[in-house]
Amino acid sequence: MTNKKEIIAAIIIIGNEVLSGRTKDINTSTIATWLNTLGIEVKEVRVIPDDKEKIIDTLNELRKKFNYIFTTGGIGPTHDDITAESISDAFGIEYGFHKEAFSILENYYKPGEFNEGRQKMAKMPTTAELITNPSSGAPGFYVENVFCLPGVPSILKSMLGGLNNVLVGGDPVISKTLNLRTVESEIAESLKNVQNQNNEVEIGSYPFFRAGKLGVSIVLRSTDQNKIDLCNDQILQFVKEKNIEVLREV
Amino acid sequence: MTNKKEIIAAIIIIGNEVLSGRTKDINTSTIATWLNTLGIEVKEVRVIPDDKEKIIDTLNELRKKFNYIFTTGGIGPTHDDITAESISDAFGIEYGFHKEAFSILENYYKPGEFNEGRQKMAKMPTTAELITNPSSGAPGFYVENVFCLPGVPSILKSMLGGLNNVLVGGDPVISKTLNLRTVESEIAESLKNVQNQNNEVEIGSYPFFRAGKLGVSIVLRSTDQNKIDLCNDQILQFVKEKNIEVLREV
Repeated sequence: MTNKKEIIAAIIIIGNEVLSGRTKDINTSTIATWLNTLGIEVKEVRVIPDDKEKIIDTLNELRKKFNYIFTTGGIGPTHDDITAESISDAFGIEYGFHKEAFSILENYYKPGEFNEGRQKMAKMPTTAELITNPSSGAPGFYVENVFCLPGVPSILKSMLGGLNNVLVGGDPVISKTLNLRTVESEIAESLKNVQNQNNEVEIGSYPFFRAGKLGVSIVLRSTDQNKIDLCNDQILQFVKEKNIEVLREV
Repeated sequence: MTNKKEIIAAIIIIGNEVLSGRTKDINTSTIATWLNTLGIEVKEVRVIPDDKEKIIDTLNELRKKFNYIFTTGGIGPTHDDITAESISDAFGIEYGFHKEAFSILENYYKPGEFNEGRQKMAKMPTTAELITNPSSGAPGFYVENVFCLPGVPSILKSMLGGLNNVLVGGDPVISKTLNLRTVESEIAESLKNVQNQNNEVEIGSYPFFRAGKLGVSIVLRSTDQNKIDLCNDQILQFVKEKNIEVLREV
């Protein structure tokens, strides 16, 4: 794991509906899981309101700190969809009809159905690159390292694959999970010792309650399979000594 | 809605497991929904890694900008639980055994079971106030306007009620949802007009797909019921004119 190439990303969830508690965000999980396979680690997520100034400030702060920024939400046809305009302002690029996006949408809808609301979805930074939308026509877009995706989870998910060849990843993070029939306090000291001996493996400990029983998931993450295996062996050793059951599934 | 008293909060989700995509955060929704009932609006959420410096920086930035900060995660017994220590550092308060917390935990466990791991859960800023945990003994705590809660959703949820009399709220935000059998682009212009005439009502528009059918949820939010009713009437008027079906349930 010498010369590890770390590529990091942040996600900006734009949406009053998440802040009000009405909607639970699942896009973070979808994006992060996908980015992991490309060797890109999500290091921060921000959920912010549909507020132009806030979007611009957050974007301009984060896009310098991270290799990639992903935004979700606010690129639909209604008045509360202000992401595209905000991105234009943040980059100082003209906000207007994007020729290619306009053409895609014009072809997508039947004659007479390409109304004003739908045309708004072709408005974005005019020089943006597009992200193909296989689900519902309206493309996402990106400017430099900022990728703008819709908020609807199924549509967002369908668009990610189109970016696989656009993003430049690092060493993929490998993870291994051990599910144990125990409680955290029983293994805390032993686990700490293993962590101290394995600085290049991130060891997470997560209690769970399922089917009325307590357990702990130990998650090992590293870019180096050998280091994970070594760490895993050390954990299995104290697990055996303590007579803790290892669960196949939880 | 004159003299509206706005009380705002931010949530800091501390957890590599959310950033890796392994765990979907549902605590934001639980906390935000509860705070709404107290007249406190969540205006920002940050998900950050189990990293002491990052926790301290984020906390010190946000606690000056918001009336209340809620943190979730990182107060358990294992090596990756570093929230309590980080909060101590951020406030410059001694990190050590909290007498009352120690006593609560000592009484909670059977004789001989109060081991080192469990004792760690009594370590926090020594002058913190405690948050009662009706589920599993180990209390949360707060220092000034920063409230530290566990990451396990069921335990977190059980602890919120104990804070109802500690927090000072504002005017509660009332919300009303209209579910329509339509698509956003069909109502975008009309909805924009209603929004322009009702500046003190926040109108959100959220497309949904359920049981194979498209629909749109319109969410009206305001501290003033009359303003919501007026806005609702105006929406129902164009909905009627457009022959759009209003759904009872979605």
